Amino acid sequence: MRIALRVAYDGTAFYGFQRQPGLRTVEGEIIRVLQKLGIIEDPPTSNFKGASRTDRGVSAFFNVVSFDPVPEKAYLAKPEVLNYHLKDVWVLGWTEVPDDFHPRFWAKSKTYRYYLVDRGFDPNAMPECARLFVGTHDFSAFAKLEPGKEPIREITSVEIIPRSGYYIVEVTGKSFLWEMVRRIVNSISLCGLGLLTPEEVSGMLSGRFDRKIPPAPPENLVLWRIDYEGIEFEADERGVREFKKAVFSRYAHALARAAFLGDWLISL
Amino acid sequence: MRIALRVAYDGTAFYGFQRQPGLRTVEGEIIRVLQKLGIIEDPPTSNFKGASRTDRGVSAFFNVVSFDPVPEKAYLAKPEVLNYHLKDVWVLGWTEVPDDFHPRFWAKSKTYRYYLVDRGFDPNAMPECARLFVGTHDFSAFAKLEPGKEPIREITSVEIIPRSGYYIVEVTGKSFLWEMVRRIVNSISLCGLGLLTPEEVSGMLSGRFDRKIPPAPPENLVLWRIDYEGIEFEADERGVREFKKAVFSRYAHALARAAFLGDWLISL
Repeated sequence: MRIALRVAYDGTAFYGFQRQPGLRTVEGEIIRVLQKLGIIEDPPTSNFKGASRTDRGVSAFFNVVSFDPVPEKAYLAKPEVLNYHLKDVWVLGWTEVPDDFHPRFWAKSKTYRYYLVDRGFDPNAMPECARLFVGTHDFSAFAKLEPGKEPIREITSVEIIPRSGYYIVEVTGKSFLWEMVRRIVNSISLCGLGLLTPEEVSGMLSGRFDRKIPPAPPENLVLWRIDYEGIEFEADERGVREFKKAVFSRYAHALARAAFLGDWLISL
Repeated sequence: MRIALRVAYDGTAFYGFQRQPGLRTVEGEIIRVLQKLGIIEDPPTSNFKGASRTDRGVSAFFNVVSFDPVPEKAYLAKPEVLNYHLKDVWVLGWTEVPDDFHPRFWAKSKTYRYYLVDRGFDPNAMPECARLFVGTHDFSAFAKLEPGKEPIREITSVEIIPRSGYYIVEVTGKSFLWEMVRRIVNSISLCGLGLLTPEEVSGMLSGRFDRKIPPAPPENLVLWRIDYEGIEFEADERGVREFKKAVFSRYAHALARAAFLGDWLISL
């Protein structure tokens, strides 16, 4: 039997997703609870896998982990049980999956959202830059390359959604290189400020560059959604309710802080 | 010679205003810098005084400290010098004051702003409750009383300013009891939720109560302004510029976080 969980987490509470000895990570927190309850013995034995190894500071509204539970403890691998023990991570959905399911390789597409606060951007320059990334390109100038990794990726859409005081940059693709979304976002931001031209972006996507674009800060990036073919997560109502309560208090704190700091800026 | 400084600070970076051994406080940070530069020898010798001892977590856009500098170092007691050494506190204004100036006792009025995130408040119930506090009352039910302190205070105005997704509660008075603003705000919030009636508030202001109203959380409270008769602070342009830069980055972080957490709430 193999189980997949949809998890959400507040990235500011962790040192990234991937487990690292001595540091509090998302994966580490989930494994801690699964082991404590005897649901898995250890990650290799249970074939524990995550869909996306989000960087330190990055949050997720939809990431996926999968594992083979110890058969007699499989009944404990339920959102209501796990959410009771997890901190800063919430299991929002549950499903049984085929034995060879891998949350990363089976993903049809991933969608990230970056919340970009307006710094006086030219609203026309941003979508003009954004659409250049759509399609299949060599993203070497827009990623931190890992040895032996193919730098060619396909982006299916980049949307710029204007909101009051900020923009959402929504990027969808099958898979991404390390820091790729944050470097694309920073390029769009630099275009919006007039510090980078669409011609330069096109050139960089064709391999003409001597400097890479650095990444935008991680805290404003959210892994928004992962789509699979034929796999649906069963929502856990109580988990969703508890999640909303925990999120509301963080939301209220952030909103009040943004409000008074914004008033400081306009009152001087 | 006696100097007064207008200071602003981010309350989340400190354990309150008042100096305490071994803890990072606003007063402690200012005194550290004044002593390091030889501007004062120690607080008693320099008659160092603050206007408002804000609680842990509370921020200020306008608080005032005053001291007698060592004469040969008085030229260093300038915003541009102090701001270079201060962290999370900014000197936004400077003025020379009479030798007997006391920033607390000379204050004509203080204005606090509380940023209250909407939890489904009845917008009519809030101002109805708010206006009951205006005037001279015994605030025993709305304060943490310190031994020997007179519980009667005068509030000159309580304004409810509706904004998108939150309210500002602006309270002005000559002086306040401990936790008084936050307990008044919590009363208004409870009235907005229908959990407290105007009649109960009136009764409590007339001494009829067996339980006090607890305080609203400190992080959303800002000491907004202090008014003095005939004392004007000379703004420091560079200090204001550096302050704006530091505030913008905190504002952007809080706004992006409020935005994505808000989207999580409405997307489930």
